[in-house]
Amino acid sequence: MNYSILYKDTLLNDILPFWERYSIDTQYGGYFTCLDRNGKVYDTDKFIWLQGRQAWTFSMLYNKVEKNPKWLEIAKNGIDFLRKYGSDKEGNFYFSVTQKGEPLVQPYNIFSDCFAAMAFSQYAIATNDEEIKELAKTTYFNILQRIDNPKGNYEKNTLTRPLVGFSLPMILSNLVLELEGVLSSEEVNKTIDYSINQVMEIFLDKKTGLIFENVLPDGSHDDSFNGRLLNPGHGIEAMWFMIDIGVRKRDSELINKATDTILKILEHSWDEEYGGIFYFMDAKGYPLQQLEWDQKLWWVHLETLVALAKAYEHTQKDEVFNWYQKVHNYSWSHFSDPEKGEWFGYLNRQGEVLLNLKGGKWKGCFHVPRAMFQCWKSFEKIEANNFKK
Amino acid sequence: MNYSILYKDTLLNDILPFWERYSIDTQYGGYFTCLDRNGKVYDTDKFIWLQGRQAWTFSMLYNKVEKNPKWLEIAKNGIDFLRKYGSDKEGNFYFSVTQKGEPLVQPYNIFSDCFAAMAFSQYAIATNDEEIKELAKTTYFNILQRIDNPKGNYEKNTLTRPLVGFSLPMILSNLVLELEGVLSSEEVNKTIDYSINQVMEIFLDKKTGLIFENVLPDGSHDDSFNGRLLNPGHGIEAMWFMIDIGVRKRDSELINKATDTILKILEHSWDEEYGGIFYFMDAKGYPLQQLEWDQKLWWVHLETLVALAKAYEHTQKDEVFNWYQKVHNYSWSHFSDPEKGEWFGYLNRQGEVLLNLKGGKWKGCFHVPRAMFQCWKSFEKIEANNFKK
Repeated sequence: MNYSILYKDTLLNDILPFWERYSIDTQYGGYFTCLDRNGKVYDTDKFIWLQGRQAWTFSMLYNKVEKNPKWLEIAKNGIDFLRKYGSDKEGNFYFSVTQKGEPLVQPYNIFSDCFAAMAFSQYAIATNDEEIKELAKTTYFNILQRIDNPKGNYEKNTLTRPLVGFSLPMILSNLVLELEGVLSSEEVNKTIDYSINQVMEIFLDKKTGLIFENVLPDGSHDDSFNGRLLNPGHGIEAMWFMIDIGVRKRDSELINKATDTILKILEHSWDEEYGGIFYFMDAKGYPLQQLEWDQKLWWVHLETLVALAKAYEHTQKDEVFNWYQKVHNYSWSHFSDPEKGEWFGYLNRQGEVLLNLKGGKWKGCFHVPRAMFQCWKSFEKIEANNFKK
Repeated sequence: MNYSILYKDTLLNDILPFWERYSIDTQYGGYFTCLDRNGKVYDTDKFIWLQGRQAWTFSMLYNKVEKNPKWLEIAKNGIDFLRKYGSDKEGNFYFSVTQKGEPLVQPYNIFSDCFAAMAFSQYAIATNDEEIKELAKTTYFNILQRIDNPKGNYEKNTLTRPLVGFSLPMILSNLVLELEGVLSSEEVNKTIDYSINQVMEIFLDKKTGLIFENVLPDGSHDDSFNGRLLNPGHGIEAMWFMIDIGVRKRDSELINKATDTILKILEHSWDEEYGGIFYFMDAKGYPLQQLEWDQKLWWVHLETLVALAKAYEHTQKDEVFNWYQKVHNYSWSHFSDPEKGEWFGYLNRQGEVLLNLKGGKWKGCFHVPRAMFQCWKSFEKIEANNFKK
């Protein structure tokens, strides 16, 4: 099968039309993301993560695939909404707002800011708008300023157990490449070095080869629920960010280490009984706090497809391609919905649809199109390479 | 089958021995609650909800079943720990602390205070200790003071959508009866009237006969994720609190209305495919935010057994008994673990064990023994009644 064509076709003829058709709020601006299986809006709340992510997706595709004015218009719809209603006076982004833009949930979650910054940066590249470029930069530096206490006053943990989370260093390694156009190269290099060190030295456990979701500041482990937590999808996603950085730095050692880590995580978190990758695991195999631990989530599987495609593109290892095919077969046969379009988001352990939706509070126009784009581009190179042989 | 004997036997010879044997921290005081299937401690963190609940359970059994000095000693172990480490200087109770009692999670959760107050009150009845009685009272009034903003500074919702939650009015209806010994009768009656009104007029929806988990202050509904949320176990549990109040007030109308509501909720939330009661539902049938919505939880089923036993005790309706038997058969065949003792807490939709534990962050020595005690006492009366006929 020609995978590059499958991914390209699905992106352009299935995924994007779904969001173009159903998600645009022409009345108040921004996007609806709570869409049922058929694309019908079942809730109108606007989650800032997903507003930023969709504006980013359409800007990025405009920049990298085709100067389609419709895509730029859709991106603008989200950018305008974010600028008007996304943040408080201090420039901290809310977690969610109503359809009309009234604040619903306070800026306790720094990833709202991360996705807004990504959106602003890609949109600024598309439009060359200096004001938006500046906004991307301000938002980025505001994130860095909050890095040691991202939840601010909403932090409920005391300082007794100073665990640090993987999400922020991981996101930064991607965010900084996204913001290359608006940051100085000194700033970019500094943040790249910081995040490689965090991801590959602090959070990657030497002994098991796995990424831990929370560690003590020196990378050592704490024997507690949070300290034992593994989030396989997060770990694997971070590895394709590392491969991107490895390619940029021509650092084949980093690419190889990232590839090995993908395989380690997959071997550890593949469900041998029903197939698919577990959502959460406990490093010691103890019972988890996360009741959804055994569910199969769309983004975990799509990030894994991207990571494996990139790893194979750069290493050509058979073992990587075998895993790619295994995850491909599971993902395309379980998540994809050829009948109604787009992908389901949430399956139970057995692989049955758990929530009959295409979008919600966390699933928007982001992981599916981004993975389709990334896999399309990787397979184009893989296939061209094979052809040459 | 003689149900009263089943419940009494299970309480005294299975459930209590399990917690007596495995949960006592003889080194630092308080209780371990993270116990695996066999009772082995897999995590030592101490969750204040569960410290209070276990101290309450052993005090209550001492007061109502038998003046067993071992039970009082176990209760004291938790009471001492709560007094030393449970709260901050303002008397607000932490959510969790380390094994040694160092604060881990700040007092953002007012139910920590509710379960501490219940524990202090029952222990004060057992010991006639004036200082503990005073502590129960102070804690209770501190809860009332926080009632309009229970999360304080940790509240992330803005005032845009002023939803109020069901948990607090529901808990108050039980808490106030628990604290009868330490409060003036005027205070008790006032809080009883308040909670009957809240539960039966504001949160009980006239049209559907269901309890909503979040409503606007006048009881009207908001078409949003939280506004559509149903928590069947909560609704049913509140109904047995209402029956207790109905008995106390000799208000048969309240008892009948509570009974009807139990049946309505059960009809709406019973899983016709696999059996058991869903954990969460959306009032409009839309996809939920709670990924665990279809799981079967121990406390939901135990609270339902208590509610149906009490409803049958006071109404003798066949329909109630038929439901009792259905829930009984499901619960005893799925949650009970005759091999290793105590009950499993978390099953998947299909009824298989999801987490191989007897205790964790939320499951401690509370729902199982309380339900065993309540059902034992109800069936004693039901069986005595039948005998007389």
